[in-house]
Amino acid sequence: MHPNYRLEWSRFQENMTTEFLERQADLVKKYKGAHQFIMHDHPGAFRNDIDERAIAQFIDYPGMNIYHYDQDKSDGLRISLFGSFARSLKPGNYLVPETNAASIGWNSADQLPPYDGQLRLNFYSHIGSGANLISYWHWHSLHTGIEQYWRGILPHDLKPGRIYNEVSRIGNERARVGKELVNLTKRNKVAILYSIDSQNGLIQQRFDNNMEGFVNGPYESGNDSYLKIINRFYKALYDLNIEADFVFPDGKNFEKYDMIIVPPLYIASDKLLQQLNQYVLNGGHLILNFKSGFADENSKIRDQVMPGALSEICGFTYNEFSSLRDRIPLKGDPFQVGDKNFVEQWAEFIVPTTAKTLAAYDHPFFGKYAAITRNEAGKGVVTYFGTVVSLEILKKVLRNSLDELKLIGADQNLPEKLKVKHAFDASGKAVHFYYNFSDNIMEFKYPYKTGKSIIDNTMVEKNGLIQFDPWDVMIIKEE
Amino acid sequence: MHPNYRLEWSRFQENMTTEFLERQADLVKKYKGAHQFIMHDHPGAFRNDIDERAIAQFIDYPGMNIYHYDQDKSDGLRISLFGSFARSLKPGNYLVPETNAASIGWNSADQLPPYDGQLRLNFYSHIGSGANLISYWHWHSLHTGIEQYWRGILPHDLKPGRIYNEVSRIGNERARVGKELVNLTKRNKVAILYSIDSQNGLIQQRFDNNMEGFVNGPYESGNDSYLKIINRFYKALYDLNIEADFVFPDGKNFEKYDMIIVPPLYIASDKLLQQLNQYVLNGGHLILNFKSGFADENSKIRDQVMPGALSEICGFTYNEFSSLRDRIPLKGDPFQVGDKNFVEQWAEFIVPTTAKTLAAYDHPFFGKYAAITRNEAGKGVVTYFGTVVSLEILKKVLRNSLDELKLIGADQNLPEKLKVKHAFDASGKAVHFYYNFSDNIMEFKYPYKTGKSIIDNTMVEKNGLIQFDPWDVMIIKEE
Amino acid sequence: MHPNYRLEWSRFQENMTTEFLERQADLVKKYKGAHQFIMHDHPGAFRNDIDERAIAQFIDYPGMNIYHYDQDKSDGLRISLFGSFARSLKPGNYLVPETNAASIGWNSADQLPPYDGQLRLNFYSHIGSGANLISYWHWHSLHTGIEQYWRGILPHDLKPGRIYNEVSRIGNERARVGKELVNLTKRNKVAILYSIDSQNGLIQQRFDNNMEGFVNGPYESGNDSYLKIINRFYKALYDLNIEADFVFPDGKNFEKYDMIIVPPLYIASDKLLQQLNQYVLNGGHLILNFKSGFADENSKIRDQVMPGALSEICGFTYNEFSSLRDRIPLKGDPFQVGDKNFVEQWAEFIVPTTAKTLAAYDHPFFGKYAAITRNEAGKGVVTYFGTVVSLEILKKVLRNSLDELKLIGADQNLPEKLKVKHAFDASGKAVHFYYNFSDNIMEFKYPYKTGKSIIDNTMVEKNGLIQFDPWDVMIIKEE
Repeated sequence: MHPNYRLEWSRFQENMTTEFLERQADLVKKYKGAHQFIMHDHPGAFRNDIDERAIAQFIDYPGMNIYHYDQDKSDGLRISLFGSFARSLKPGNYLVPETNAASIGWNSADQLPPYDGQLRLNFYSHIGSGANLISYWHWHSLHTGIEQYWRGILPHDLKPGRIYNEVSRIGNERARVGKELVNLTKRNKVAILYSIDSQNGLIQQRFDNNMEGFVNGPYESGNDSYLKIINRFYKALYDLNIEADFVFPDGKNFEKYDMIIVPPLYIASDKLLQQLNQYVLNGGHLILNFKSGFADENSKIRDQVMPGALSEICGFTYNEFSSLRDRIPLKGDPFQVGDKNFVEQWAEFIVPTTAKTLAAYDHPFFGKYAAITRNEAGKGVVTYFGTVVSLEILKKVLRNSLDELKLIGADQNLPEKLKVKHAFDASGKAVHFYYNFSDNIMEFKYPYKTGKSIIDNTMVEKNGLIQFDPWDVMIIKEE
Repeated sequence: MHPNYRLEWSRFQENMTTEFLERQADLVKKYKGAHQFIMHDHPGAFRNDIDERAIAQFIDYPGMNIYHYDQDKSDGLRISLFGSFARSLKPGNYLVPETNAASIGWNSADQLPPYDGQLRLNFYSHIGSGANLISYWHWHSLHTGIEQYWRGILPHDLKPGRIYNEVSRIGNERARVGKELVNLTKRNKVAILYSIDSQNGLIQQRFDNNMEGFVNGPYESGNDSYLKIINRFYKALYDLNIEADFVFPDGKNFEKYDMIIVPPLYIASDKLLQQLNQYVLNGGHLILNFKSGFADENSKIRDQVMPGALSEICGFTYNEFSSLRDRIPLKGDPFQVGDKNFVEQWAEFIVPTTAKTLAAYDHPFFGKYAAITRNEAGKGVVTYFGTVVSLEILKKVLRNSLDELKLIGADQNLPEKLKVKHAFDASGKAVHFYYNFSDNIMEFKYPYKTGKSIIDNTMVEKNGLIQFDPWDVMIIKEE
Repeated sequence: MHPNYRLEWSRFQENMTTEFLERQADLVKKYKGAHQFIMHDHPGAFRNDIDERAIAQFIDYPGMNIYHYDQDKSDGLRISLFGSFARSLKPGNYLVPETNAASIGWNSADQLPPYDGQLRLNFYSHIGSGANLISYWHWHSLHTGIEQYWRGILPHDLKPGRIYNEVSRIGNERARVGKELVNLTKRNKVAILYSIDSQNGLIQQRFDNNMEGFVNGPYESGNDSYLKIINRFYKALYDLNIEADFVFPDGKNFEKYDMIIVPPLYIASDKLLQQLNQYVLNGGHLILNFKSGFADENSKIRDQVMPGALSEICGFTYNEFSSLRDRIPLKGDPFQVGDKNFVEQWAEFIVPTTAKTLAAYDHPFFGKYAAITRNEAGKGVVTYFGTVVSLEILKKVLRNSLDELKLIGADQNLPEKLKVKHAFDASGKAVHFYYNFSDNIMEFKYPYKTGKSIIDNTMVEKNGLIQFDPWDVMIIKEE
């Protein structure tokens, strides 16, 4: 189908929903009491047919249903990703109207109830991301209908069991410490730019051929080019224990962040490109990806030498590109990642002007072009990926950039499955959440100011050694 | 779709056909002569949209088209499975209106004519299962139309050839010994419960994720959860040279059998569960599978502690279950099957009350639950599979149970591809059929009473050594 | 669907298009000037719904869009195959109205622009096959619409770049030497019989089960049984540096060729079979494939002993056949191809009368039948493949037959990726085209009469050593 028309059609679809919801919200506002609020319940994030950002503007709270994997795939990634997204839609907190109670699914074939402890770990994972409410779907397992196997807190026999007991423990803890964990705020230094138009533009003009994506949770096809890159960058940050917000093509709040990561910004207005220029010139560190700036807001390919209005800050040009049929190594394994030294799917024929080549292709033809570049422009820096790099290369490049920005610290040296999140309570006190997403006991040294472990109400000294049970959580609030 | 409504819809579909055929049968009965009989020609067994059991009640003979694999996949399994099913629909004998003459298929792409000798071996395989007629589709290969490549006894050149010569040999033998092999009866001690409702219930609420099934013949998708278990148990019995009948949810004839195997009886009325209870209490050995008793006759999940009305005879309860993403070993390889020591797809969280745990999962979380149990109840025994076990484990567990019932003998020690069947002629004499489903010469010691090899009219002594050509058959009738 | 009706339907479809185009051509002929000509632009060869041969009869030039692979898959095969086909539709020359300028594709996911030098190599590859025009689709890359990524000579920035420079070089060379390369003629000794009816007949009655085919270019499914065999034989010839024409079921020009290769001629009239008989009796060498002569022009399977009217010249009969589930070796590896000693997919049960068995199956059952035979009939020879042989076996058998016909020479000893084509100019002078389809430098000894390298205007002595750049071409015209 005609790509220009199709993009416009996707916007028409989004607007239908936005306008309908806004009319509903207006009605409710007329009659609701001051103690009441309006939430819209999103069935998941990054929907290509719903403009979640627009909807957030006229409601009080974004609600985000966050269904995730459990058992051996339990890692908190989906909870954090969707949480970051919901939190950024309308800066503040968000609600989780639905999440896994037990096993989920519209049929009996994929029933994966949580292991012991995972339900509680997930609860605090939501909280650590800024959720103000976690509510389970649903109370008891249904005996009839299509959700017979979307199991509730009670089994079909309606008798309190293993799941009920875990929820009961969570409820008791919440009653005790909940007030300390509500309305938390974040002060993240890294943001990712999410463009629903680029998602839709790349659904038609995808750059990859069945690249293996990072499917971060159930009911995700993993086949969408754009979301694969979002997931890949978020996964790299999550592995590095770096928390991130999202920003949007309206250009708001760019200046709050030391680093903005831009997944392929295939669709962009002149104004947005100008805002990205300004961000860099003012001192920001932009992580740009291939295909950014390629088409305008009508999916019309620009008739400029690429990357068009970004050429100056990027410090290079290209006017050809190629799909990569096979993985290609980077010359000299510049990031020391051994058998992960490969790029794939796409290569822009980048010829630097002022940019420094961070990595080039090890290939007779593509070898003359740059694969990853770095350019200083104004007070800022642009790091550009002209290709899809392996996750390991991605983490190395990001870590180098974060290091320049002095964002690398103790968190980045924790064991792999020990995750950490940070927030501030209403009085401005720092709260540190530690999560053990493994079935092993773990140890680590607590590096922040002396504080109180708020669940068991004990003091934790700076540099004190902390031991952790499998699937356990620890929340420390600085004094 | 709504599972309850869908099950009812499948019953409506079945009834449409049943009522139509019954009306036709009534008409024919009015006018047919006493020497004539009514047969319905089923295109295959275990159809989920045809209630074969109901139809059998108003006709004289079930007719079952049995198309099977030939060449290297020739093993008699489909002939026996469909034969057992047809024979049990209306206890007595059955007819085979269609079976492979030569290669079959609606196109040219899967033409697999039998190797020399296989046609005759298959003929006696039908007979040994109780067939009273074997008729080939069709006389000569058609030159036009969609069945151009469903080849007949004569090739397209209409000249007698290899296939004709084999059929001619069969015909000559039949003329000579056919009267000795008609109206044979079976005295099997093992039955399998077939529930068309459970098949339909599990089409919607399947328990497996693309589990590899035992496809026993052509034109079978092998994708139906319930039929995979039927096929798996029948295959295990067939490998053990144990013949079996089928019983149905009407509960008739349960008492005739020492052992009843119950594939996942997902849909069951209270009455049927009561009959199974009674069978055990009266001394029967029930082999029960996971999900049995879970839903009532409307596909409504029961609100009892599971396995509901079967809990007492099972000697355990469960109220959770999980899909198994990966194969899990049983703790300690209790059946000594080496690399076949695994279970898969499904695990019920079984907590025994009176049952003995025959096998438990080797897994940090599932390890606390029983995988296979055995419980004595009244005069009987229930062996329960809470998971899908490997074929090798299945054979070991079944063999142990059969041994307790004194159903293990010489047949179970024959070489792998030497199959045996038993029947009784009109005068009550035992007939033993031996089949060599291989291209090797085989030897075995005949363990039954001295009898006559009825094809070549020679005597065979008890314990006499018999030598067998590839794809050959031997039929011995006791004196 | 009914195979007979379906074949007729395919002919009806073809005729609709033929008649429509003929009416259009008649209109144009009325009004066009003497200097003008009529071309029809075919979007690719071997279309099963377009009778390209019939259409060629009332136009001046067949036009053939030849889109091909580039980069590492660049081998000239598609250019040669489609070129041979176009050239044979109406003996003479053909035009290429569209071919790759840069990367092609209706979306961004499979962009593979040529490596340096490939564009020019492809240009001369068309010319060497007899093309009189090569025209690129298209001038500049489009900024909107479904062909946004079917890139042109100019990139989206509309500035001359790498591709433009290559086209410019080609254009300059053409201005200089084009007159020497127009209206070239071929004197090939080998032809392949293409039967659109057999293609359609075998779409319904295919003989293979997902056999891996030789996909020779983009936008080809590779799933059509008949085309797989066409491609396989053409690939074998191309690998041997043997150029071939196509002949058609109208039987014209058979006598011009020393060898005619007949892919499965599933649909054939009595007359065509008679013409093939005559070709052999008069001294031709026929390479026949399985299923030839099986059905008449109505897709009715013949009621003769097979291969029917071809039996006499073949020197054997068969009346059964089998699909081959697995690859089967030939007894004794008669062609010395090691792990490529296998046949697959199909086996006719061939019993020779006068034919010599060139190879038999190494199999307990199929072993009694011949796999490949050779029979002398009249002054000619029939080599028959009763099965699908590996590409390596195919090349060996073809090479043996070509050797008998004295068609093996220096061309057949060139390095693998060095291809050669031969033609004659208007004055009858021989022109030799050499192509280096690799990224290595290559050397070879020029074996023909002393001539002039027409691009660089230097003399090349007979037996002179020639050195070749990667992706380079050399064209030598004998004095």
